[in-house]
Amino acid sequence: MNIGAAARAMSNFGISDLRLVNPYPVAFHEARSAVGASPILAAAEEYTNVAEAVADCTLVVGTTAVRHRELQHQLKPLPQAASHIRAQLSSGAVALLFGSEKVGLSNEDLSNCHWLVHIPTRQEHFSMNLGQAVAVCLYELIRDEKQDPAKSVECATAAELERITSSLMEALRESGYMKPAAESTAEMKVRRLVRRLTLQAEDAESLLGMLRQMLWKIRSKK
Amino acid sequence: MNIGAAARAMSNFGISDLRLVNPYPVAFHEARSAVGASPILAAAEEYTNVAEAVADCTLVVGTTAVRHRELQHQLKPLPQAASHIRAQLSSGAVALLFGSEKVGLSNEDLSNCHWLVHIPTRQEHFSMNLGQAVAVCLYELIRDEKQDPAKSVECATAAELERITSSLMEALRESGYMKPAAESTAEMKVRRLVRRLTLQAEDAESLLGMLRQMLWKIRSKK
Repeated sequence: MNIGAAARAMSNFGISDLRLVNPYPVAFHEARSAVGASPILAAAEEYTNVAEAVADCTLVVGTTAVRHRELQHQLKPLPQAASHIRAQLSSGAVALLFGSEKVGLSNEDLSNCHWLVHIPTRQEHFSMNLGQAVAVCLYELIRDEKQDPAKSVECATAAELERITSSLMEALRESGYMKPAAESTAEMKVRRLVRRLTLQAEDAESLLGMLRQMLWKIRSKK
Repeated sequence: MNIGAAARAMSNFGISDLRLVNPYPVAFHEARSAVGASPILAAAEEYTNVAEAVADCTLVVGTTAVRHRELQHQLKPLPQAASHIRAQLSSGAVALLFGSEKVGLSNEDLSNCHWLVHIPTRQEHFSMNLGQAVAVCLYELIRDEKQDPAKSVECATAAELERITSSLMEALRESGYMKPAAESTAEMKVRRLVRRLTLQAEDAESLLGMLRQMLWKIRSKK
């Protein structure tokens, strides 16, 4: 039901590209094949993990109800977040990532995000209905149709950032930077750090080349 | 279900006074007495017509999907509407009037309104889910008063950036990434690249630690 509600809000505000990560199969396929299902729902794509779903995006923004965990990310209020997102849209696709209503986004999901957006709800009742949260975020995105003129710098895609993350992890592993037991925590930290770098496409390519060269050197001496 | 959704959005955004005009009795009383029903729903008041429901308000604003009838009212886009409503709230109660999702507000209902508000949805799909419409309107109402100042992030100093640049140059040199003849050009490129990363202080420290570990590994194998 929440997927249908999200699709409806998207249609209202003119946003069409819906991607789903591991939706409940029965509920999703029923919603999709229902009479009158929206074109957005019919065209929605399924993925098995967040990284794949956002691979072609140059900015990945997570949404969160905030209070449940120590946040490792920068948190922007929705109005500012929307203006950053609009600026970014001139140079690439942006993913706005919502978790399930019950459990939200996992730390693993969040590690794919550049930063997080916060809808200014009351502290005493901060958790929104998913469809309503989607509607509010998309409304804010189209609210000022007078576009902020954006400088067009080509930004690195999530896939490029992930390649950098992998190479860096590999180099750190081979260098003995972390204990094997702490590796998965370290990986999330590294993934978040790489996302905070706000890399341009060209710099991402340079950085990847540098990392691979260092990695080659580290390995060649074994 | 829409009444519950509206009540939830109200609770999220800190607005408590819910008034219902002729709700379906069974659905409403079930929603109201459900375990975990919100205080807003429990305290909601019932009226038999709009005029009574808004009797104590100094401003009554209707919401409409617009297209279905000749409008006799002034229509304000939501951002402007919200700012008028906020101004009015200092001198009296304001009613924001929503119709049922299926038929909206009747001409009779609308005749109780001072003016109407318009949510900027797409012409091809303008009709919103009721709970989502309520959420968007209430969000806009509190949007400007609740700007939590973004957490200030400590940025890396030029000295820290230069330490990163040096270590990175050293690692690249030892890895054979560039020809010695091209080194001074490469160094400027690396220096600029490091500055474009917009590093936070904490990330700069992590990155420097990583680089030093890799450099140590590269050297230890000689």
